Order: sequence, then structure tokens, then C-alpha cells
Amino acid sequence: MERFRVILSGSGGQGIITASIFLAEAAVYYEGLNAVQSQAYGPEARGGATRADVIVSDSAIRFPKVNQPNILISLTQLAYNKFSETIRPGGLLLIDSHFVNLERKVDARQVALGMYKAVMDKIGKPIVFNICMLGALIGLTDLVKAESILRVLESKIPAEFLDMNREAFDIGLRLAEGH
Amino acid sequence: MERFRVILSGSGGQGIITASIFLAEAAVYYEGLNAVQSQAYGPEARGGATRADVIVSDSAIRFPKVNQPNILISLTQLAYNKFSETIRPGGLLLIDSHFVNLERKVDARQVALGMYKAVMDKIGKPIVFNICMLGALIGLTDLVKAESILRVLESKIPAEFLDMNREAFDIGLRLAEGH
Repeated sequence: MERFRVILSGSGGQGIITASIFLAEAAVYYEGLNAVQSQAYGPEARGGATRADVIVSDSAIRFPKVNQPNILISLTQLAYNKFSETIRPGGLLLIDSHFVNLERKVDARQVALGMYKAVMDKIGKPIVFNICMLGALIGLTDLVKAESILRVLESKIPAEFLDMNREAFDIGLRLAEGH
Repeated sequence: MERFRVILSGSGGQGIITASIFLAEAAVYYEGLNAVQSQAYGPEARGGATRADVIVSDSAIRFPKVNQPNILISLTQLAYNKFSETIRPGGLLLIDSHFVNLERKVDARQVALGMYKAVMDKIGKPIVFNICMLGALIGLTDLVKAESILRVLESKIPAEFLDMNREAFDIGLRLAEGH
């Protein structure tokens, strides 16, 4: 398989670290792949852009940090401004159209989706924005199967919140259709 | 400050990744330090030992993975057997006495605490075992202040579970007293 080098970026409280762990666990536990997930917190993290890295591969992964992502997700303008130039040529850039304006040209497939707006309109809870983003990511790529993410949700989310998370994931999957 | 290189090890479901993230966030958000948190999932993660790495420092951290920890926590025998030989001379090894027998001599301060048993006796919920472990870790080291962990718990744990988590943390702190 292609090696996926993913950076999920945005601000604190958007659920980026949780989403990145769910993605890594779906790959490992339900698809038999290898994965590494990490985040660095430094001066930049305090008030700046939050960033989590995930590498998924069927072979061994020696270095846990992503320098040039082939998939970049940016959920704030600050994160987009900071990371969009690091994307590999031919990669995928996914942004949320409520929070980010595409301001420069990058040599990548750029997809702007109204994930936050759809979650707020249909569910009304910002807490599942990150799961909607995972749905869009899975809809746009061959990273892992939707079924594998759903199995992680079932194992990690308390029963009373599971339907809401499944709905957010499905909204993301549908937003990605046709892109 | 000393640079802390921590490996938390055990099995899936013990809350090791969550605990490692809480530790990193306490250092960064409430003490102004830098931190990196990561976990690798590979063939070893499926059915083997789970491991999360945290590095905390007041200076920049260039490499996110810990090769030789100065603090090693092992919550299963398998994890202990796998990682105990990597500890730095003079480091700290913390194990749970319900799950681990100390089987070899390492050049480190070895502390065996009945964290799991105390949590089950006093609270009856294994889900807060990881928070009790964090309490013991903070009681044994100068990593971060107890207050900083409590602030992370307050920001991350749903209100209805907060008291249970505070109690588990306090049990860990008290178990560490005198060691």
C-alpha cells in the first residue's frame, strides 16, 4: 500500500488528537496495518495551531513525525496558514469551509467542505465535529474502511453518545461524495 | 529542569494513552513546559504490550520517541518484561503489584504499589486505574504539580465522573507517600 502521512491541524478543543488516535487504532486493530500517532506541544501549541501526526503503513515505520504530509487537514485559518506549504505535491488538502479560506495555490487536491456547519445544523453539538471530519477523510481517501472507524467508535464512545457520533461520521462521508 | 523521558506501558484498555496525554497537557498548559506524546502501534501492539511515550522539558524536544526512559511505568508483566531493561541507570521504575512481579534487578529505584487493588477496593471501577497511576507518578517525582493534573482532569472529564477521578488520583498520591 501507499504510505499515508497525515497531519491533522486546527485549534485546541476541536478533538484533533482524539480523531488522530481513532484513525491510528482503526488501521491497526481492524485492518492489520502499522501506525504511529504523535503530537508535540510547545510554545506554538499554547495559543497557536494544534497538530497531530498519524502515519499508516503496511511496513515498519521508523520515524514517528510527519514532515511533509500527503494528507493535510486544517480546521482553522491559523493551522492552514502554517501547514499548507508543507504538503507533498499531489497530496490531499481538506479544510473546513466555515473556518478556513483557501488563500494560496498548492500543488494538491484541495477540498473545502462545510463539515462544521453541517454538524451544527443537523446535530447541534460541536463535540462531534472531529468525527464528521473523520467521515469526510475516509470518504475522500483509501486510508481505512468506514467500517473500521465505526468499530473504533463502538469500542471507545459511551453507549449514550454512540448514535450521535455515528450520525456525524455519516454526515462527513456524505459531504465527501462526488469530490 | 531535568528532562523527563517517560514510557508508560501495559495492555490495551488500561488507559495508558489517555494518561500519557493528560500528563503532557498538564506540563504544557499549566506549567509552561514543552512536551511530546506518541504511541506506535505495530505487530507488537496487537496482543502485546501497549506503550506510550512522553517527553517533558523546558527546552526544545527534537525527537519524539523515548529509547531509554528515566521513568518507566509497567502495568502488566509482559510490559515489565519487555521494557525494564531499557531504563536509564538511576531512573524510576513504577509497577502495579497486582499485575507485575519484579523479577530482575535493574539499576533504578523500583517502586511496587497496589494501585489496581486500592482502586478496586475503594472505588470499584477499573476505568480510573490509569488516573490512580498518574497520582502515584506525581507523588514519586517532580514531573508536574498535582494541581496541574487536577486542572487537566477538570477540563477533560465529564462533570459526573470528575469526583471519581479526583478520588483515584488522590489514592495514587497517598500510595506514593513515603516511597
